[in-house]
Amino acid sequence: MAQWTYINNEMVPESDAKLHFRDLAFSRGYGAFDFLRVKEGYPLFVKEHLGRLMSSAQQLRLPLPPLTELAKKLQALIEKNELKEGGIRLTITGGYSQDGYTPSDPNLVISVHTFQPPSSEQEKKGIVLISHEYQRQLPHIKSIDYLTPIWLQPMLREKQGDDLLYHFKGKISECPRSNFFVVTRNRTILTPADGMLPGITRQRVLRLAGKKFTTAESTINREDIFNAEEAFITSTTRGILPVCRIDDHPINTGPVTLELRALLEADTRSYVSEQK
Amino acid sequence: MAQWTYINNEMVPESDAKLHFRDLAFSRGYGAFDFLRVKEGYPLFVKEHLGRLMSSAQQLRLPLPPLTELAKKLQALIEKNELKEGGIRLTITGGYSQDGYTPSDPNLVISVHTFQPPSSEQEKKGIVLISHEYQRQLPHIKSIDYLTPIWLQPMLREKQGDDLLYHFKGKISECPRSNFFVVTRNRTILTPADGMLPGITRQRVLRLAGKKFTTAESTINREDIFNAEEAFITSTTRGILPVCRIDDHPINTGPVTLELRALLEADTRSYVSEQK
Repeated sequence: MAQWTYINNEMVPESDAKLHFRDLAFSRGYGAFDFLRVKEGYPLFVKEHLGRLMSSAQQLRLPLPPLTELAKKLQALIEKNELKEGGIRLTITGGYSQDGYTPSDPNLVISVHTFQPPSSEQEKKGIVLISHEYQRQLPHIKSIDYLTPIWLQPMLREKQGDDLLYHFKGKISECPRSNFFVVTRNRTILTPADGMLPGITRQRVLRLAGKKFTTAESTINREDIFNAEEAFITSTTRGILPVCRIDDHPINTGPVTLELRALLEADTRSYVSEQK
Repeated sequence: MAQWTYINNEMVPESDAKLHFRDLAFSRGYGAFDFLRVKEGYPLFVKEHLGRLMSSAQQLRLPLPPLTELAKKLQALIEKNELKEGGIRLTITGGYSQDGYTPSDPNLVISVHTFQPPSSEQEKKGIVLISHEYQRQLPHIKSIDYLTPIWLQPMLREKQGDDLLYHFKGKISECPRSNFFVVTRNRTILTPADGMLPGITRQRVLRLAGKKFTTAESTINREDIFNAEEAFITSTTRGILPVCRIDDHPINTGPVTLELRALLEADTRSYVSEQK
């Protein structure tokens, strides 16, 4: 099936979806994006994702079209591509800069993506995180900067890790593309309060978990993770995944994570039902 | 005059020089570049710039064509564009990634640029630097990541600064697009040894200065700069520029900087003469 992509106001075949090399995203890494999941043809949590894109764009001082227009474009793209399951990425860039440094009129790309859901083994056994001292620049912005984690991929493979876990000045922040939670021994659910991207799934999990458990956004020190009863990550593409090891330290994949995972799946199904 | 650009092995008109949005430079900020100056039709310090590009690309594990082929392409582009004065940028990217994260066959863009030489006022009076706590990720690589300094431009204008000066854990590293030097009271010329890009002009200035002054690549603490006799920056596009103020602290623009500037200009003229 031929895929279609929005470049600004024009829907073009995927193969024609190109930007000029003078765009600041390409030449200076200046841009932001958001990524949402499409399930049964419905884009999930559109309001939250578009709201975060707006926040990222505003912080980078890149004007976006109105949210209603973005939502219409999303819908048109889903229909044109007959997309049932997959993802949509909205990327806003620094535009074609005259001097190669000063942002100009932004370019907006809305594109359709497939993504690999977690394997059933990962869902059951959990994933391995390798800790790495790093603080993402402008962490509240979902910028296009993934230089360090991509550069670290061979190290990750060598250590047989599935993903990185960033810490800085002794504090845990996030994984490159997901948020991090621990379940303490008294079943309190903690996630870092600062230095990380405010994840849409993170927010949803906090709300769902709060109905049954004590939850807190708070500092998680590096030592704390080794005393955790359970640990898990949250993301748009992976939902909730248990963590079974951080560096050399095994962690139990336990009942709280499984329960939250079931709650999140039910919540997602109910979101889709409401759209129908 | 129509400009021409290389996209991989094809020379195309500037207006057609586009890359697909799935390139990792665009989607994940994964890429490196180098920039060299063209004077009287000759590319300056080609060997050094191509050598550094090779180093950046190797560190990012992006295969480059052989240096002889790159040099030939540079030459062909200069001739086709009848370029006498200006700049050439070579950008190597993470390529069209299948999964949006893993680097693939890189794309190579070689493009012609104009740049604004420093104003005679800046040359005479010097520039104002505003210090900012920041450590560039992978600082030895000339990556395309300029997210933070571009984001900080309004702050810089507000403080009436010309450029940023990065420091981290109390140590000075570099400016976003240039290296930093101080001249101490006993006329020793110092530049940071680590945490910064190994600049081509920096290396050249160290060599030229070493003929007459004591020079050292060493730690420069933040306090040291306020005791400096003189300070200056070096870059491909700006040569040597005196610094007249760092934050609220005025610095004399003195004779050593002017002497080094004259030495660098003579050295550049002699490089061009040798090519003729």
